[in-house]
Amino acid sequence: MAQFLKVKTADEVLAILDCVKPLPPEPVSLALACGRRLASDMAGTEPVPHFARATMDGYAVRARDTFGASESLPALLETSGQVVIGEAPGVQAAPGKAVEVPTGGMLPEGADAVVMVEYTSALDNTTIEVTRPVAPGENVLKAGEDIAPGAALFRKGAMLRPQDVGVLAALGIVEVEVTRVARVALISTGDEIVPVRTRPLPPGKVRDINSFSLAALIESAGARIGMREMVPDRLEDLVSVCSEAISDHDVIVLSGGSSVGVRDYTTRVLSGLPESELLVHGVAIRPGKPTIFGRAGGVLFWGLPGQPVSALITCQAFVLPSLWKLQGMTETELPPARTLSAILNRQIPSVHGKTDYVPVFLSRRTGGVPEASPIFGKSGAISILARADGYVVIPEHVEGLDPGTEVSVFLFS
Amino acid sequence: MAQFLKVKTADEVLAILDCVKPLPPEPVSLALACGRRLASDMAGTEPVPHFARATMDGYAVRARDTFGASESLPALLETSGQVVIGEAPGVQAAPGKAVEVPTGGMLPEGADAVVMVEYTSALDNTTIEVTRPVAPGENVLKAGEDIAPGAALFRKGAMLRPQDVGVLAALGIVEVEVTRVARVALISTGDEIVPVRTRPLPPGKVRDINSFSLAALIESAGARIGMREMVPDRLEDLVSVCSEAISDHDVIVLSGGSSVGVRDYTTRVLSGLPESELLVHGVAIRPGKPTIFGRAGGVLFWGLPGQPVSALITCQAFVLPSLWKLQGMTETELPPARTLSAILNRQIPSVHGKTDYVPVFLSRRTGGVPEASPIFGKSGAISILARADGYVVIPEHVEGLDPGTEVSVFLFS
Repeated sequence: MAQFLKVKTADEVLAILDCVKPLPPEPVSLALACGRRLASDMAGTEPVPHFARATMDGYAVRARDTFGASESLPALLETSGQVVIGEAPGVQAAPGKAVEVPTGGMLPEGADAVVMVEYTSALDNTTIEVTRPVAPGENVLKAGEDIAPGAALFRKGAMLRPQDVGVLAALGIVEVEVTRVARVALISTGDEIVPVRTRPLPPGKVRDINSFSLAALIESAGARIGMREMVPDRLEDLVSVCSEAISDHDVIVLSGGSSVGVRDYTTRVLSGLPESELLVHGVAIRPGKPTIFGRAGGVLFWGLPGQPVSALITCQAFVLPSLWKLQGMTETELPPARTLSAILNRQIPSVHGKTDYVPVFLSRRTGGVPEASPIFGKSGAISILARADGYVVIPEHVEGLDPGTEVSVFLFS
Repeated sequence: MAQFLKVKTADEVLAILDCVKPLPPEPVSLALACGRRLASDMAGTEPVPHFARATMDGYAVRARDTFGASESLPALLETSGQVVIGEAPGVQAAPGKAVEVPTGGMLPEGADAVVMVEYTSALDNTTIEVTRPVAPGENVLKAGEDIAPGAALFRKGAMLRPQDVGVLAALGIVEVEVTRVARVALISTGDEIVPVRTRPLPPGKVRDINSFSLAALIESAGARIGMREMVPDRLEDLVSVCSEAISDHDVIVLSGGSSVGVRDYTTRVLSGLPESELLVHGVAIRPGKPTIFGRAGGVLFWGLPGQPVSALITCQAFVLPSLWKLQGMTETELPPARTLSAILNRQIPSVHGKTDYVPVFLSRRTGGVPEASPIFGKSGAISILARADGYVVIPEHVEGLDPGTEVSVFLFS
C-alpha cells in the first residue's frame, strides 16, 4: 500500500472517482423503479398505441372526403354507427361515411382522420355537415406513432422518472433491470463521541452527529445504510468492524480519526483491510482537508473528518459522486439540477492553493437572479449549514470573489 | 354543490390551493426525519457545544500571555500537561502556562484561546516558544457559540435536510414533530384501460399507465399511495370506491372520465360524496383542460384527464402543489430548486387565452446558460415526456415565444 501520497486537489479526487464502476444490475418491480438507473439501453418492444386512436371527440372519416369543405360549402357525410371506447369498432368507414368516435376510441378500418365535433353539425339523423377539411392523420395517433418497436427509448444509466415509468407501463413492462443501489456501512469513531440520546452530556463529550447527518445525506442519494456503528477510537476495534462490513457493503464511510494528528488511525484501518489501496490521502480543500479515499478489494473506503461540518461538506462533495457512479450515473447527465446561478452580495476571501467551500443563503430578488450571501462563522459551527441553502466553490487558483460576481451555488438537497 | 363553474386559469387554480391547510403533526424518529417538514418553530434547547472546544491542534493559553509575540520575540510559556479528547481537563491554564490540546478537546479552566501547534516550538521538555499572538476566542468554539439556548433554529414548515438533522442530533433530539405526509388514493377509470401486465392487448384497450406514472410522481413529493385501484367507468362503482377511500386518505386522485364528453362522471362522482364542494371545473391550460378540483369533507378531490400526458402535466402543475401544502410547505420557500434558466432555441407558438405547458429538453452550452429545445408532437404521445427534461409555461396572455428568449424551465423530478 502506498503510504505517502501528496495532498490532492478537489478536481483530482473527482477524476480518481472515474475508477468507480456501476454495481451489478438487479430486477425491480416497475412500481418501485422510479429514481433507479437503467442497467442497459432500452428500446420499444411493441407499438404504442397498438391501434390508431382518436385524439379528439368527433367523427372518423376518410380525409379525402373532407377536402375542400368550408363553412359556405360543407361536405356532407352519412353517419354510420359509433365507436365505443375500449372496444373494436363494429363498423368500417366506407367512402362518404362518418363514424362517431370518442377521444381515445379505436379508428374503424378505412378511416385515416378524425373531424372534431366542433366542425360538424347534424343535418338529420343520418347526415352531418363538415365545415373544415382534415388532413390524413389529423386528430389521430397512429399505431406505433408514439413508440415504434425497436425505437431507442432510454440509455443505460438513465434515472427513471415518473413519465419514464409511464412509458414502460405503456409497453406492459412490469419489471426492469436497474443498477443496484449502494449499501453503505457508516462508522463513527472518536473517544469524545457518545450516542445522540445521551443527556446530560458528560464533560468533554459530544454527541455522534455524523451517524444521523451523514446517514440522511447518503440516503438522499438513494443509497441504503446497512451497518451504522459507533466504534471506540482503537485500531483493532476499527479494523475488526470494517472487516465485518466488507462482506456485505459496497462502501465504508468512517468519520473521525483521520486528522493528521496524534491519532491518524484511518489510514492504518484501511491498510489493515485485505487488498487495500490508498488513493487519496488528504485534499486541498477547506473545510475537509483530512479526507481519505481508498479501496479494500471491491469496497470503496472513505475516511471523513470527524468534525460534523467538514464531514457533511466532504460527503456532499466526494462521497455522493462516488455513490452516484456506483448506482449507474453516466458522465453526460443533464440537467444540472443541483446548481443555481446567483449574484454574490459580499466579498469572499480565499487562500490561493486551497479550494474553499463557502456556505451561502439565497434571497429572491424581484424578477431576477437570486442573491447569494456567504455565511461566515467559526469553523465547525453546524448551525451555519442549517442556515445555508447551498455552497459556493472557490477554486484553488482564485484568491477570493468580489461582490456582484455571478456564482454557481451547489444546492443542498 | 355549485354545478356550473367557469373554466379557471392556472393561476386561479393555484390561488384556490391557498385553502389547503397542513395536515396534523406526528412524531417521527430523527433517523427518519430528513425530508419531512417541521410542525412548529424550533429553538436551541441547550448550548452547542456545551463546553469550550479547541478547533485546532495546539496549546490552550490565556490569550494575553501571547500578546506581542513574534518570530523575533517569541513568548515563552511553561507547558502544563495535556487535554485528552473526550475527557475533562485535569489541569488549569494558569498565567504563563500552556496546556496541549487536540482539535475538539475541552479547554481547561483559565484558557481563552488556542495557539496552533504550527506557531509553537518546544524549547525544552517544559517550555514552548509562541511566535504569533492569539486573540481571546481564537481557535476556540465557546460554549453555546454554535447554538445558544433559545436561539431561533428552524421555522415551522421548514423541510429538514441532512445538516438540519445534524443540528437536532447535536441537541440530543431523537424525535421530532413533523407534519404528517399525505395519504393518497389513486383511482384510474375508463372502459378502455386494462392492467399494465395485460399482454397481448385486446383491440381498443390500453394499459393503465396512470396507476404507475401518477403514483411515482405523487411518491416523489413524499406522499404515500394508499389505495390504488382500477375501477370500471360506472358512477355507482366510482362513488362507492371513493366513499371507501375518504375514511383513511387525505387526497383522492381520480384519472379518466373527466372529459366534457358523453361520460362526464368525475363531477358526478364528487357530488355523490358527502359534504362535497366543486372548486374548479376545467382549467384553461393545454394539455389538461378537463381538470377538476374539489373537496369532500376534509379530503381533497382531484379529477385528472385520463390521457397519460395530460394526467402527468396536471398532476405536476396542480396536484403536487396541493400535496406540498398539505405536508406543510410555506409560501416563502427558497430556493426555487425545481426551475432552471435556459435560452429557447426555437419559436413556440401559443394560443391567447390558454396557458401552454410545452415539454423541452436541455442541452449544455459551453460555459453558459443551457439551451431549451421545445418538443413538439402529437397530443398524447408519452414518449415526448420521456425525452423532456422539463417544461416551459407560456402564460395565457402571451402569444408564443421567440427563439433567444430566456425561459424558466420547470424541471421534472
